Amino acid sequence: MKRIAESTVRRLSLYLRFLEEFEAQGHQTISSGELASQGGTTSAQVRKDLSFFGSFGKRGLGYSVSALSASLREILGLGRQWNVIIVGAGKIGAALAQYKGFRERGFKVVGVYDTDSARVGRSLDGVHVKDQRELEGDVAKLKPQIALIAVPAEAAQPLVDRLVKSGVRAILNFAPTPLTVPKGVTLRSVNMALELEILSYALVNADD
Amino acid sequence: MKRIAESTVRRLSLYLRFLEEFEAQGHQTISSGELASQGGTTSAQVRKDLSFFGSFGKRGLGYSVSALSASLREILGLGRQWNVIIVGAGKIGAALAQYKGFRERGFKVVGVYDTDSARVGRSLDGVHVKDQRELEGDVAKLKPQIALIAVPAEAAQPLVDRLVKSGVRAILNFAPTPLTVPKGVTLRSVNMALELEILSYALVNADD
Repeated sequence: MKRIAESTVRRLSLYLRFLEEFEAQGHQTISSGELASQGGTTSAQVRKDLSFFGSFGKRGLGYSVSALSASLREILGLGRQWNVIIVGAGKIGAALAQYKGFRERGFKVVGVYDTDSARVGRSLDGVHVKDQRELEGDVAKLKPQIALIAVPAEAAQPLVDRLVKSGVRAILNFAPTPLTVPKGVTLRSVNMALELEILSYALVNADD
Repeated sequence: MKRIAESTVRRLSLYLRFLEEFEAQGHQTISSGELASQGGTTSAQVRKDLSFFGSFGKRGLGYSVSALSASLREILGLGRQWNVIIVGAGKIGAALAQYKGFRERGFKVVGVYDTDSARVGRSLDGVHVKDQRELEGDVAKLKPQIALIAVPAEAAQPLVDRLVKSGVRAILNFAPTPLTVPKGVTLRSVNMALELEILSYALVNADD
């Protein structure tokens, strides 16, 4: 499905963030060295990353900030709006629904769902939490491309199956459990307890 | 600093989660195949992952659920309590402070800090938000091993520098910006907008 490595996509996304800051400050060109220092990498790596997508820079002159950021936005699929639904309106789901960073980059929350009647009807930054029974009907109508799921672990796989059956092709999972999706569907997981465990592993296995 | 690959630590953490469920259901042994299906990997990979840490299973009998989970907890540094502070009590920070999954695995939130006087004094699941000026004093007193930072991008690097100077050795960053730490300090980043961009990249570059 992916033609370039995820680590490259990750760096491109960081370069874009830096280019946008640079653009806001009125700069017109940027060197691969400046991009590298921001992305925590090397000039050679920056040139290699960008070479995947054709020729951008001019030797000695650096990259055009506006041209490069426009290209990166297109490469990353950010030249358009993505409709996002959030399933699960607990603390994590509610925080996600109100996260400004999503909207700023073209990800629009078009629906939030929960099974708990105490949460249904609440407003999260202008989006009302709806009953999860409305999920299939809404997906058919709103055609969200991306679903964020923030439900208890045991509810996650049946929910993913429902979403996939309804036509959702990209899922970001916050439930602390491994999930499976069929080919053609992209699934990513953010597991905060697991991130902490990787830190605790590093602390107990520190050399010093 | 790390002796085994992060991807291995990630799988060990998933195996442990599954073993704990299995233990709760009263099972005493588990095969590498059962662990593999849960971790989204193969039996051979499971055996290889566990072989890093000595011999656990008996051929044909599988692994002892209780012995293996005890060993994994020890390997992952979970046999103890870790004190965690959270800096930034906005929506993300507040959600983190109240996330039950942390406490269940031995990560105790001992302090939450913010610079915004409107947030200082609020109670988040029994922990009161304190003024960020108290950070250094509290770190000296409470000796948190891990800091979670959920502050605006431009505030993140100066904050990390303060934390490192105070003696914090592991940081989980939720600010959408790359950060640097000196050798001997472990930094991990969770960037939700970036996760969405990786999904949007996959959507626009889908083969079908």
